[in-house]
Amino acid sequence: MSATGIETTPELKLRYDANGLVPAIATDAKTGEALMLAYMNAAALERTLATGVAHFWSRSRGALWRKGETSGNELKVLEMRVDCDQDAVWLKVEVAGDGVACHTGAASCFYRRVGPDRPGGNAYRLERVAR
Amino acid sequence: MSATGIETTPELKLRYDANGLVPAIATDAKTGEALMLAYMNAAALERTLATGVAHFWSRSRGALWRKGETSGNELKVLEMRVDCDQDAVWLKVEVAGDGVACHTGAASCFYRRVGPDRPGGNAYRLERVAR
Repeated sequence: MSATGIETTPELKLRYDANGLVPAIATDAKTGEALMLAYMNAAALERTLATGVAHFWSRSRGALWRKGETSGNELKVLEMRVDCDQDAVWLKVEVAGDGVACHTGAASCFYRRVGPDRPGGNAYRLERVAR
Repeated sequence: MSATGIETTPELKLRYDANGLVPAIATDAKTGEALMLAYMNAAALERTLATGVAHFWSRSRGALWRKGETSGNELKVLEMRVDCDQDAVWLKVEVAGDGVACHTGAASCFYRRVGPDRPGGNAYRLERVAR
């Protein structure tokens, strides 16, 4: 499919990378906060679409993974979108269970902000900004 | 750094992949809509932090890229966050120029929703849902 074709086609045809993966960002459907970024292969995409619950490919464990399968914090997918060149996925989700998306216990994996180490400096540090 | 250390350290130390890249998701700071997903290398991270304007590494062109350098639609970074294991970046941004983040002219790269091809079916198609 041409570069232009991929941008306009109604055909769902993700462009997986050399490892058979695309990045998928999950955001809270209500607040718009980014919750986590993980990777999908074709099987994870299929299971997500079939069940309405987010599935990913765990690169560290080398296994298909239903997010929340042990914690109970599943991600209910309210909407799935693809980007222009179909190599990224956006999931608008609702977190089940106790509303915690991160394995660390944080509501979102993105709990640290990057800020200057000191005012006007050019070194940076992380600051925790969410529970 | 240990798995636990990376989750709690105040040190900004992105875990780049084998190609020296991490995925970065940009969302609209006002609406929470996902705008684009691109990749940063160390130079793109440094330029983004130093300028407050999003820079990425273009995998197709093999070049550092200031988003909007030709279109004028730069992404002003209001906040940058990293995820728990520091292999993904979240940018809360404001789109400059005419507010168009996608090279296709769409406000967001994620302008197509994935939906069932027919009610109750298990085939899927894309539907344009944004300008």
